[in-house]
Amino acid sequence: MIAHILSTGDEVLLGDIIDTNSGFLCKALKDMGIEVQKIMAVGDDVESIAKLIKEISHVADICLVTGGLGPTRDDVTALACSRASGQRLELNQQALASMRSYFAKRKFVLNKDNEKQAMLPETSRVLINHNGTAPGFYIKINNCLFFFMPGVPSEMKIMFEREIKQVLADEFSLKDDILIERLTVFGLPESRVGSLLKEFKIKFPKMRLGFRADFPVIEVKIILTSYDQDQNKAASDMAAAKQWAILQLENKVVSENGLSIAQEVGQILTKEKKTLAMAESCTGGLISNIITDVAGSSDYFLFSGITYSNDAKINILNVQKKTIVEYGAVHEKTALEMAQGARFKAKADFAISTTGIAGPGGGTEEKPVGMVCIGLAGPCISMARTYRFSFDDRLRNKKMFAMMALELLRRHLVCFF
Amino acid sequence: MIAHILSTGDEVLLGDIIDTNSGFLCKALKDMGIEVQKIMAVGDDVESIAKLIKEISHVADICLVTGGLGPTRDDVTALACSRASGQRLELNQQALASMRSYFAKRKFVLNKDNEKQAMLPETSRVLINHNGTAPGFYIKINNCLFFFMPGVPSEMKIMFEREIKQVLADEFSLKDDILIERLTVFGLPESRVGSLLKEFKIKFPKMRLGFRADFPVIEVKIILTSYDQDQNKAASDMAAAKQWAILQLENKVVSENGLSIAQEVGQILTKEKKTLAMAESCTGGLISNIITDVAGSSDYFLFSGITYSNDAKINILNVQKKTIVEYGAVHEKTALEMAQGARFKAKADFAISTTGIAGPGGGTEEKPVGMVCIGLAGPCISMARTYRFSFDDRLRNKKMFAMMALELLRRHLVCFF
Repeated sequence: MIAHILSTGDEVLLGDIIDTNSGFLCKALKDMGIEVQKIMAVGDDVESIAKLIKEISHVADICLVTGGLGPTRDDVTALACSRASGQRLELNQQALASMRSYFAKRKFVLNKDNEKQAMLPETSRVLINHNGTAPGFYIKINNCLFFFMPGVPSEMKIMFEREIKQVLADEFSLKDDILIERLTVFGLPESRVGSLLKEFKIKFPKMRLGFRADFPVIEVKIILTSYDQDQNKAASDMAAAKQWAILQLENKVVSENGLSIAQEVGQILTKEKKTLAMAESCTGGLISNIITDVAGSSDYFLFSGITYSNDAKINILNVQKKTIVEYGAVHEKTALEMAQGARFKAKADFAISTTGIAGPGGGTEEKPVGMVCIGLAGPCISMARTYRFSFDDRLRNKKMFAMMALELLRRHLVCFF
Repeated sequence: MIAHILSTGDEVLLGDIIDTNSGFLCKALKDMGIEVQKIMAVGDDVESIAKLIKEISHVADICLVTGGLGPTRDDVTALACSRASGQRLELNQQALASMRSYFAKRKFVLNKDNEKQAMLPETSRVLINHNGTAPGFYIKINNCLFFFMPGVPSEMKIMFEREIKQVLADEFSLKDDILIERLTVFGLPESRVGSLLKEFKIKFPKMRLGFRADFPVIEVKIILTSYDQDQNKAASDMAAAKQWAILQLENKVVSENGLSIAQEVGQILTKEKKTLAMAESCTGGLISNIITDVAGSSDYFLFSGITYSNDAKINILNVQKKTIVEYGAVHEKTALEMAQGARFKAKADFAISTTGIAGPGGGTEEKPVGMVCIGLAGPCISMARTYRFSFDDRLRNKKMFAMMALELLRRHLVCFF
């Protein structure tokens, strides 16, 4: 089966946004056993899009198209599809109904511009947009089944997951013959992860690895497709491969189920009915934000004191003035007192703290940009450690500091419980 | 001038990596006044690549190709180029010399596999790789000048900057002829921004608009390319277009220079030498994180109390127990006391607070998911307001709540100073 992907939109060609949709779709199709042969991107130009659709309709079996379904004049994909297919655009009642229901829920008023979004080529079938106003559609042109989706990633993803997958499975009688395991790795650069797992291909020739880096964390996927009918054999092969990969990765696997560090921490705290507080200086709220991105975190997360100023560290977290005067704000002693203060103030079981230099300014020879002191306080722990990273980038430093603090906490919780 | 971009490599089509090279190149070309018409990506297949090169050679003036220059069997771009151009591959002495020097510097030994990388089509001219072993090259095929670069972003970027830019400038006598203005818009959905600016094309036919949505903020770019030799005329045309666009956008332009709300707030506070504190419940540290992403924020940001639990609101922010018992945690009265408490505790000039329901759980009929109360306290303000949003998504709610709070603060600061 030949699959193509076509992104439309000036913003990609102008370099204003990176086209992440195509990557998502490649991966999603691959997980269904469909490999993409070609990706294309063109601007919001009706002639160029129509020409490409025509060309693709003769060479591909499936084409996923993103972008250009909105209400503005720039949005010309349905028109281009109409030209390429020789079908008139007509008001699609199902599309209109789906938009009406989306608008009604939000008490918005449907205007003429929006109605344009329901003008689709005659034989189109509607794909519901669960996250926005523009309906998608699919249509057969020559030999190829085209799926038209919005360009906004959150709208496109949910449309693919909830609408298109099923159509693809039905139309091409795909079967679910894929096993995937995910490992979350923290503390190794991507190239090192790759070289540690170099022998994988030789050891497990039927499987393959996928990598997804979301700095500073790397997700390793172990994928087994088209496995034998014997599902037990497949499961035990997979277990062996997973065990081997974990062993290679030098103790840097933070989740054997593809969870984030914050999710792992949350699971332990929820299970043990324990609570957490934080005291953040250089991470500026990032740790709390990561923790509270997890639904249900209100069960264990009580308080974080983001204390950028020394006064706030002293007045709110009970850090001793003497400590800051003698050792400075960025010091293990200060980090420890911050963690202890947050734990005490919030009456939490555990607390972590960060104080460091995220940059670009504020570094000295002794305390350079990239240095962070992390404190950890709990029922039977009171410690602080210093780490030095060498990123020349404020946001990367914040992220690395935050993940390091969470990882320190995770390791302690794993040992403690 | 027509420019195309071609990425090669299985890893992009498998969804294992996102093609960021094309975005970089689009932006870099645009900065030189060259607009990209089409982006394509294909796998490491010599026939597909050769066919595409041939097609492109008849329709484009420039084509930038990335990937497939390495030493392995997968790396087939030079071979594909040889087939498409009908030129033999031969050992290019300049390429070999450049590799030798790269290897010598690092005390590596050149092997046969590496030598393959110096086999280039006859009329190629070498592009030095400053960051890796594989030399690039450029070559004219039919009407099109092709540039072949490595796929590793760090190698590609430096090759573009140091080698290709100069060749392009010489070959096409380019000059710097682009003006761009950026407006940051908050509080309107993208479709509404598009329809408010619908008349732009008619009013300002020589300019065009670009949109970039980073939920819930939209950046509108006004772009004027190939303007008259008269730079004053161009600047005044641009000023008129900008003014017109700001007027259309219903007071929802939060920065006339493309800055974020946090940057705008930071500029005012820095200039006025005022300080800021926060009290966050439902946003869970996101506001602090956004504020502290701005370098130099330690000049004005003192403290944020992330108080997820009621006890933390009471003990740390001095919210009255009575208020929470009588009205609940999510209420304007609580929000107001949180802001006042944070302002008092941190001795800050201004403070903002959030308390609401981010979801997915925790909603009731009276206080549904998506509801947030925002407090604002300052030298002559003490207020709180309730907003209701209808996103079915925890992270979108957190983001919207955070931006709304920052925008409320920004508006107050703009009026106050």
